[in-house]
Amino acid sequence: MAARDTWQRGQRCGWPLARAKLPILRWLPHYSLAWLQSDLMAGLTVGLTVVPQALAYAEVAGLPLQYGLYSSFMGCFVYCFLGTAKDVTLGPTAIMSLLVSSYAFHQPVYAILLTFLSGSIQLAMGLLHLGFLLDFISCPVIKGFTSAASITISFNQVKNILGLQGIPRQFFLQVYETLRRIGETRAGDTVLGLACLAALAGLRVMKSHLPRAACVEPLAARVSHLIVWTSATGFANILGSFVSSYPITGSFGRTAVNAQSGVCTPAGGLITGTLVLLSLAYLTSLFYYIPKAALAAVIISAMVPMFDAGIFRRLWRVKRLDLVPLCVTFLLCFWEVQYGIVAGVLVSGILLLYSIARPAVKVSEGDVLLVQPGSSLHFPAIECLRDTVCSYALTAASPPRSIILDCCHISSIDYTVVVGLRELLQELHKHGLSLAFCSLQEPVLQVLLSADLEGFQHFSSREEAELCRGAEAGARGEAPSTSSSESLLLPEGLTQ
Amino acid sequence: MAARDTWQRGQRCGWPLARAKLPILRWLPHYSLAWLQSDLMAGLTVGLTVVPQALAYAEVAGLPLQYGLYSSFMGCFVYCFLGTAKDVTLGPTAIMSLLVSSYAFHQPVYAILLTFLSGSIQLAMGLLHLGFLLDFISCPVIKGFTSAASITISFNQVKNILGLQGIPRQFFLQVYETLRRIGETRAGDTVLGLACLAALAGLRVMKSHLPRAACVEPLAARVSHLIVWTSATGFANILGSFVSSYPITGSFGRTAVNAQSGVCTPAGGLITGTLVLLSLAYLTSLFYYIPKAALAAVIISAMVPMFDAGIFRRLWRVKRLDLVPLCVTFLLCFWEVQYGIVAGVLVSGILLLYSIARPAVKVSEGDVLLVQPGSSLHFPAIECLRDTVCSYALTAASPPRSIILDCCHISSIDYTVVVGLRELLQELHKHGLSLAFCSLQEPVLQVLLSADLEGFQHFSSREEAELCRGAEAGARGEAPSTSSSESLLLPEGLTQ
Repeated sequence: MAARDTWQRGQRCGWPLARAKLPILRWLPHYSLAWLQSDLMAGLTVGLTVVPQALAYAEVAGLPLQYGLYSSFMGCFVYCFLGTAKDVTLGPTAIMSLLVSSYAFHQPVYAILLTFLSGSIQLAMGLLHLGFLLDFISCPVIKGFTSAASITISFNQVKNILGLQGIPRQFFLQVYETLRRIGETRAGDTVLGLACLAALAGLRVMKSHLPRAACVEPLAARVSHLIVWTSATGFANILGSFVSSYPITGSFGRTAVNAQSGVCTPAGGLITGTLVLLSLAYLTSLFYYIPKAALAAVIISAMVPMFDAGIFRRLWRVKRLDLVPLCVTFLLCFWEVQYGIVAGVLVSGILLLYSIARPAVKVSEGDVLLVQPGSSLHFPAIECLRDTVCSYALTAASPPRSIILDCCHISSIDYTVVVGLRELLQELHKHGLSLAFCSLQEPVLQVLLSADLEGFQHFSSREEAELCRGAEAGARGEAPSTSSSESLLLPEGLTQ
Repeated sequence: MAARDTWQRGQRCGWPLARAKLPILRWLPHYSLAWLQSDLMAGLTVGLTVVPQALAYAEVAGLPLQYGLYSSFMGCFVYCFLGTAKDVTLGPTAIMSLLVSSYAFHQPVYAILLTFLSGSIQLAMGLLHLGFLLDFISCPVIKGFTSAASITISFNQVKNILGLQGIPRQFFLQVYETLRRIGETRAGDTVLGLACLAALAGLRVMKSHLPRAACVEPLAARVSHLIVWTSATGFANILGSFVSSYPITGSFGRTAVNAQSGVCTPAGGLITGTLVLLSLAYLTSLFYYIPKAALAAVIISAMVPMFDAGIFRRLWRVKRLDLVPLCVTFLLCFWEVQYGIVAGVLVSGILLLYSIARPAVKVSEGDVLLVQPGSSLHFPAIECLRDTVCSYALTAASPPRSIILDCCHISSIDYTVVVGLRELLQELHKHGLSLAFCSLQEPVLQVLLSADLEGFQHFSSREEAELCRGAEAGARGEAPSTSSSESLLLPEGLTQ
């Protein structure tokens, strides 16, 4: 038999432990010359992208420019050993730089402490298997904060393009001050900045004629998970703190560049890291001469494509409720990015908890009341299910003779649900009604049997339960009804 | 047709709005003389119980004794108008008194402020429909904290039985100090306390010969919901703060007394409230002479039955995982009751979130890979489902030709799940595999269709999907397999 049935909870089974823990073992034994060639090309391309970006992001973080490069090489080396996706690159990013700027107060020493602490927390989360908590950052929240960050980070650079000094950090004050002092614009900065922007836009247009479209979107989503990721990133940040790095994460843009350059394994990171080290060794003396307007152009042209205007329309079409966390995150991120993310996670968490506490329950009224919870029954839902059953069974104009609870969608139950069901059985019994369970999955049946509920009856299928209820009613001398599909045809008066 | 099918999310529909908002309208129009007689008896019985208990609980809260009575009448009057269950009584309780003692610092003014603030919060929660949040306090958490509270509150009174002064409030220090100073015991207090305890135990034994057993447990669970309840309790607390009440809740013990006394409507509360007011008017001058040892006996004999030793055994038998929140709550409650409850809610919340983030997924390997999530797919689960499908589809020794996702248990999906499924479709397509959906419920199908997924195929049933997959494989000139049940019989070598 080639087939096996397995119930599992998301563990990859059958993969050797060593390969799972040290992913370099998955590709190093098969490494070939052709791969080396591709990795070399991709590594160089990413390296040439990361050097100017790292300088620009150090500016966003409010740190001396060389700290961008300090932050750029350790991630490449660490990910080469521990990375699972060939094209993901770790390094400084615009959003992380924005977050760092809130806590570093222009002091590299705070940024480095932040790197060590965040790395330790990430590593601890990884070791304690708390990574699943990150799955609670939903797509609308990620879209909301990246879109808002692309606006705030881009606008933050407008002052550098205009050559204005002493603009406050807070977004709304920044907009007000920038507009108020627009008369003080320095022509030289503006011309240089706009020229750089035009050049980068031109390059982008040229690049867009190359085939690439499809791969970027799923990559973006995958990398977004890295933003607060665990063990890989945790190691990189702890080690990074020893080489004066500020916190790093997976980078959207450079991962896409990496993928388009045809990288074959994470070894491409070694080339990128080496290139960063070389530029640190030979180019730092030149950093003083880099004009802020040029860096601003680099940042703006990297951030503008991250604004996803279409997400509002897509959510309206697909799932309107998800617009709530999106809008909360998007709007609050203009105040502070971290508050926006936290509020978005809370809102989507509350919506999630509400849908768990108030699951859809299908009720078919008739001679036999058929109640079918639409999804699994977790403890917060039992009170609501009891209320629903009681309100239909005890207060209806034509009370049913018996109730069938169809449990086909329930895959597990807990003690609170068991207690609630016991109380429901007692309450219905007090009013002379019986409750039968049907279509119980094996684990649920085991729990209910072990709880030894008084008056617990179960049937393998809904049809069997209806047949049996009908026969019982018949035996008690009531109007015969062998199945609910028949009883449905009786006029209301007859069933009362 | 006598039947109708309804999908609902826990709203009681069909009940007139006025009756829902002002529950007194549900029973007042039908009020009869027979009911009045029963309510009078029950109201008197509960009143005679509440007066000594209220004095004793004021002692637990660390307030002058009359504040127990101040707290006892407003709840009765308010619940008469707004109460939905005939037997529930609001008033001071041992656990609430313990909580009040942490924040009132023996100052009635703080206790009254606490009443007003907690009433306002409860009312706001009621008006904002946040009551569903209370469903997240699971049964093991409630059992854990009531059991721990029965021990701490009882032991807290041992010092009064022994006549010891100046014992600290914290439980562990209290045990240490009480044992250390046991030599200072005052014989008079101890004899009086033990005599009262024996008398109350005797009354309890006599009462246990009367029929009552079954009703108490479900009542206890129902009342436990009142402990942090919303609109009814909220009103009572806000109004109570104007008559120097400290915070009140539903009382386990007196609700049971009320039910056993045969109460018919919440009107019984009017009698109880009047009795409390009368004793306030004529008996307060006598409070000075009530010995603390006698009050201690009242408290101990009310609290001891709340300890549920059997819950540990029951949970071990029914659902062992629920022992974790029980034990966390039980143990931490000895430190501070409120920390225990918060920790228990967090632990049971994390267990709940984990089961949502990692739902059981049934995988049947074979020629066609069949994947069936065991319950609804919420956004935290999609990453794990994708990993599961990919690890089976892309890394298996004998890769399947196509994949079927059986969605019969999925009742709703959100945008994050849609994005995850789109990425899964793309990733499988990249590896030359196709993914078909089957048994989609109508709302889920609508969402998926509106998302316009590339390569989205769906079939009404699993059999149809398997048939179609088999036919496609045949058309491509592969080994024919019209259904997976046949392909399951092929030896492993043939399918590779």
